[in-house]
Amino acid sequence: MTLRSMIRPPEDQPAFVLVEAQLADNIGFAARAMLNFGLTAMRLVTPRPEWPSERAVQTASGAGSVLEAATIHRSMLDAIGDRQVVYATSARPRELVKRVITPRQAAAELRAHAAQKVRTAVLFGPERTGLINDDLAGVDAIITCPVNPHFSSLNLAQAVLLIGYEWFQAADSTPATELRAAGGDIASREHLESYLLRLESELTECGFLRIPHMRPAMIRNIRALFGRVQLTDQEVRALHGMLTELVTKRLSANSLDAPDGEK
Amino acid sequence: MTLRSMIRPPEDQPAFVLVEAQLADNIGFAARAMLNFGLTAMRLVTPRPEWPSERAVQTASGAGSVLEAATIHRSMLDAIGDRQVVYATSARPRELVKRVITPRQAAAELRAHAAQKVRTAVLFGPERTGLINDDLAGVDAIITCPVNPHFSSLNLAQAVLLIGYEWFQAADSTPATELRAAGGDIASREHLESYLLRLESELTECGFLRIPHMRPAMIRNIRALFGRVQLTDQEVRALHGMLTELVTKRLSANSLDAPDGEK
Repeated sequence: MTLRSMIRPPEDQPAFVLVEAQLADNIGFAARAMLNFGLTAMRLVTPRPEWPSERAVQTASGAGSVLEAATIHRSMLDAIGDRQVVYATSARPRELVKRVITPRQAAAELRAHAAQKVRTAVLFGPERTGLINDDLAGVDAIITCPVNPHFSSLNLAQAVLLIGYEWFQAADSTPATELRAAGGDIASREHLESYLLRLESELTECGFLRIPHMRPAMIRNIRALFGRVQLTDQEVRALHGMLTELVTKRLSANSLDAPDGEK
Repeated sequence: MTLRSMIRPPEDQPAFVLVEAQLADNIGFAARAMLNFGLTAMRLVTPRPEWPSERAVQTASGAGSVLEAATIHRSMLDAIGDRQVVYATSARPRELVKRVITPRQAAAELRAHAAQKVRTAVLFGPERTGLINDDLAGVDAIITCPVNPHFSSLNLAQAVLLIGYEWFQAADSTPATELRAAGGDIASREHLESYLLRLESELTECGFLRIPHMRPAMIRNIRALFGRVQLTDQEVRALHGMLTELVTKRLSANSLDAPDGEK
């Protein structure tokens, strides 16, 4: 997955339609959330704040470009008229027979539509009331985020963030888990082995491995430890250095100790 | 998955540790984000706002209980000393050899740890600077959210929201897609069939299906349409009613037409 296919031009993205947004802060936070996930197509249906809004630009915190490109609409139809598939976010679809999907499922569907050049929109309702049934009746599906049933209180900007997040993750190829080896590559097993053999030899020398029947298990445990750490080349070199210093110190200490009686 | 297993008591949850949070608003928003996803174990390391903070309670918007239960700590060690596995959120782990994982992977691991009674924490850094390398060095893994490489600007509360969201989804059993049939059950195929047969009969009657070689395809298309809608019983009854009315109107119109010549 290339970056180009992840971050689509506005015409190929789902339009995020904020319906009667009441607070400039939330519009700004929504813009910021969108741009974090490569989304730039914001549409505002009769927003309450004066527009353009200085306050929204402040909370957008660098995502002012999304606000500048946002279009203002006098009606829902005006905002979504060019769209072919429309989703709506809502916590509580009552009295409607409607498919209800999770944000993750919605993201998968939005990506599939985008791949087929189907134009989509996602509706977000006003802060306190949410979308009304008349708005919900016409949509293709309702997106409801599973939340704590005892405290369900996602605000507008949080809802935008979660849908945007899932949209981006749906096409992202970042490995779920990855070792970032800032100090170079992960050491080859051969490199690691040379250290482990030296360590064993030094541990034998100093007497740590002196009890014969315990020695195999002790070595196994040391190997298990270093085996799972995915050491980098640089770290193996550092361990070699530490070992050298530790041994040298011991030798020096011994050589200081030894002459004690002779002083 | 029962609700009880999703929403764990605080001691079985990951502690969300906000390190040197600068703004009361963000602590409040973080509390709200956490409670939406059943998380209540907040810990604050040397927060900047005076504590308790009236402002944080306002932005928590109903999640004040999380703030009241939050513990204040004078050092990182004091905050995470009782934890066994510690994750840190950070956009940019440099100069450290450290496993980097996505929020989704982190959630899976946090749930796995919780199931084994392993106590975990997730660290969130201060707003502008994020966590410093000294904080990151000791953690088990770093959580980095894949975002738009050209605009990476998730704030503290947004990061808390995304980790909380993934934590909740990792144990949530809401179907990805589901038809909410507010008007009763989805109609049985038998019930639907009785309507379709009646519709065919009426469409034959009125001449819509009059061209013999086109009739099979037309019927197939009508059946395909109604077949994929997952109509409820109530909707089938409504369709019956509509058909009855439409036919009656035609009959009435005809009966008005017919006597024309006889008037």
